[in-house]
Amino acid sequence: MIQNLTEDQMTLLVIKALKEGKKTDFQKLLEELHPYDMATIHKNLPEKHKLRFLLQLNIPVLTDMIQELGHEEQLEVLKKLGREKSRKVLDDMDNDDLASLLDDMSPERIKSFLSGMKKEESTIIKNMMNYPSETAGRLMTNRFVWIRNYYTVREAVDKLKTFAEYAETINYLYVIDENRKLVGVVSYRDLLLADINAKIKDIMYERVISVSVLTDQEEIARLIERYDFLAIPVVDEEGVLQGIVTFDDIIDVVIQEANEDIEKLSASGKAIDFDTKAPVAAFRRLPWLILLLFIGLVSGSIISGFQATLQKVVALAFFMPMIAGMTGNTGTQSLAVVVRGLASKDINMKTALKLVGREFVVGVIIGAICSILLFAIAFFWQGSAILGLVVSLSILLTLIIGTLAGTVIPLILYKLKVDPAVASGPLITTINDIFSLLIYFTIASWFLDRLI
Amino acid sequence: MIQNLTEDQMTLLVIKALKEGKKTDFQKLLEELHPYDMATIHKNLPEKHKLRFLLQLNIPVLTDMIQELGHEEQLEVLKKLGREKSRKVLDDMDNDDLASLLDDMSPERIKSFLSGMKKEESTIIKNMMNYPSETAGRLMTNRFVWIRNYYTVREAVDKLKTFAEYAETINYLYVIDENRKLVGVVSYRDLLLADINAKIKDIMYERVISVSVLTDQEEIARLIERYDFLAIPVVDEEGVLQGIVTFDDIIDVVIQEANEDIEKLSASGKAIDFDTKAPVAAFRRLPWLILLLFIGLVSGSIISGFQATLQKVVALAFFMPMIAGMTGNTGTQSLAVVVRGLASKDINMKTALKLVGREFVVGVIIGAICSILLFAIAFFWQGSAILGLVVSLSILLTLIIGTLAGTVIPLILYKLKVDPAVASGPLITTINDIFSLLIYFTIASWFLDRLI
Repeated sequence: MIQNLTEDQMTLLVIKALKEGKKTDFQKLLEELHPYDMATIHKNLPEKHKLRFLLQLNIPVLTDMIQELGHEEQLEVLKKLGREKSRKVLDDMDNDDLASLLDDMSPERIKSFLSGMKKEESTIIKNMMNYPSETAGRLMTNRFVWIRNYYTVREAVDKLKTFAEYAETINYLYVIDENRKLVGVVSYRDLLLADINAKIKDIMYERVISVSVLTDQEEIARLIERYDFLAIPVVDEEGVLQGIVTFDDIIDVVIQEANEDIEKLSASGKAIDFDTKAPVAAFRRLPWLILLLFIGLVSGSIISGFQATLQKVVALAFFMPMIAGMTGNTGTQSLAVVVRGLASKDINMKTALKLVGREFVVGVIIGAICSILLFAIAFFWQGSAILGLVVSLSILLTLIIGTLAGTVIPLILYKLKVDPAVASGPLITTINDIFSLLIYFTIASWFLDRLI
Repeated sequence: MIQNLTEDQMTLLVIKALKEGKKTDFQKLLEELHPYDMATIHKNLPEKHKLRFLLQLNIPVLTDMIQELGHEEQLEVLKKLGREKSRKVLDDMDNDDLASLLDDMSPERIKSFLSGMKKEESTIIKNMMNYPSETAGRLMTNRFVWIRNYYTVREAVDKLKTFAEYAETINYLYVIDENRKLVGVVSYRDLLLADINAKIKDIMYERVISVSVLTDQEEIARLIERYDFLAIPVVDEEGVLQGIVTFDDIIDVVIQEANEDIEKLSASGKAIDFDTKAPVAAFRRLPWLILLLFIGLVSGSIISGFQATLQKVVALAFFMPMIAGMTGNTGTQSLAVVVRGLASKDINMKTALKLVGREFVVGVIIGAICSILLFAIAFFWQGSAILGLVVSLSILLTLIIGTLAGTVIPLILYKLKVDPAVASGPLITTINDIFSLLIYFTIASWFLDRLI
């Protein structure tokens, strides 16, 4: 019973089997493991056992395992396998996984990789690599089962059986015409329920939801989520079926897109995870920080412009960080609502205007409440009703403007077809700092005579 | 050909069919539509056509459609259908969807809903509602196919055919023993490839990856993502099979969890989307803002403590927003890395310490670089090397501390089993404001004599 083994227990069992050289025990163990488990074991194995482990695996198992590894590890394993075996693995790999591996390589390296492969496989990969990244053309696999509309259910099931091992999904059979154009789809469930002699054209769905080779991965994710599909077909401009995108790739896309939104919202730079080395992480974050440093200096020069005012009423400085901070916070809140909203659906001008109106009202409500609170605080703390008035008037205006900035800036970026999430939280915060200081000191200057 | 209709075109076709009363045209149209399309049409239909549309639909179609609607719309449709029809729809609904609908209701309302339903269906729902929300017990469906290990492949396929229409997934058949304990799994692909007379016990996988009824949905999402499963079985403490969670629920979970992370990181409050009304959105955001307002006042009182210093060197105020802002920014960056990292995997003490060490080095690198830059800027702008020294020393220290705060605070929350994302960006920013002002003014006080 190896039903409930932990990672470490599995690894120990493998080491034991390798050491004792019991081939049948080892094979029996492998049969129960998933590709992800195999990859975990490979990661956990001490270096000296890795090669022996790899040599025990046959090509299909190796292929499944390698697809679960990161790019660096994939290259390491391929190197260890040697030219002959690694060529076979490359031929067998899902073409979307292979395209993703080649993505990071130099053109010469790609060439040498592809040269060893079967002609038909390498041609497919080359074609895929021509599509822009994050499109359907790059995510699709050609391992689907197609049928013709004059097949009977029996013929379709027979074809499915032949391709069951090879196909990435056996849930859908795609119906194509004589020009390979996609004209229908039959689910495996439909086949199970249909009469064995029925014609495919009588049971197929004609309204196939498909995407183009150039469709963005975010759009594909939206369709799969809406329709709960296990796979979606990909067609070219002429409607010719080119491949399918399967749900497992889409779960990865959803996670990746959410992470990208968070990275951008926090301006934390591209792809920093727990394993990123410190200098790499630092230099990925620095560009944003240095930009924000210079924008921050603009705040400084605004204050320096109001030096005389500040010198006369130093108490003004006490409320500076709070007003600037609150304006930044409300902006970040609006920004997050807009960015996440845009990630889940497209919006038109009408919705955008409605949203701006909504956020304006939100700004007025939170501005008014904070303004009343702050008047009381400033009055009791500093004993000056005039200072209370300056502070509360400022917070009312800055919160309204801050909320609007957090809404309008990402919407403008969206309209300009720039990813709205680049208007990161820190950027909005820094811009709102500037707005808020300008407003605060301007209002303070008006009341300067009464403040002293 | 209704292959490539837009939403509006579909809706117009339905209105036309309804008006002309052509039943067969209408039914033909419906056959090609997906539940999501039906739901979209229902949403887009003018109020006067809605009832007529609903009355044309049979129970299975109504059930599929209703599961794609929001809770408010679901209730509206159920009301329109009348007692008899809505009871049938409730009986047919997936139990996870029904449990989610009942979730928002008062206990009396739930009782009246369940009372009309079939006894066996309502008992299942009642049991499900006992599990905490966001656990496997709440997401699972009981519409799976189980077999016994002494079945032949032929018997298994026959059972699958019988249940094909009813089951939520036909990709896996779960093998249970005489006590209903889960002992194996066979995929539909395995059945296709196996000999028709083979015994299930010879082809099944014994190592079934399963979750407990109390497993958190985030953990389930991780398993499904790793293993690319279409469904995962749910067992109780005794290992008895209770249900399955299917991938389509998990895609929704992944999106929901990412949105929750972003909401918390931006402190934007719970569930604000484009349709939320302004006062609701404002009052969801206010609690955080008011908390941050009071924390912001702490910064104010720190500055007021250094009033004498500030009065003597007003130029110190020029750099205040920038130093505070930069500390907040670097903290937010670290926070985002930690929160997203924790969302995708669990970490132990060793990894946590390694991460803190890494972020310390990151803080030193970015601190040193920004410090050199700022020294030059302060020196050339204000013409004072001492001011330059104060500002650059401050930024070095605050960036290191800010980076560490953004790392350590979410890690501590994680250790205390509090969701680390509640240490929102604005909260970290505000706390870092306080740190940075303390450091900045303390350093300035040391050099005060030379600054004047």
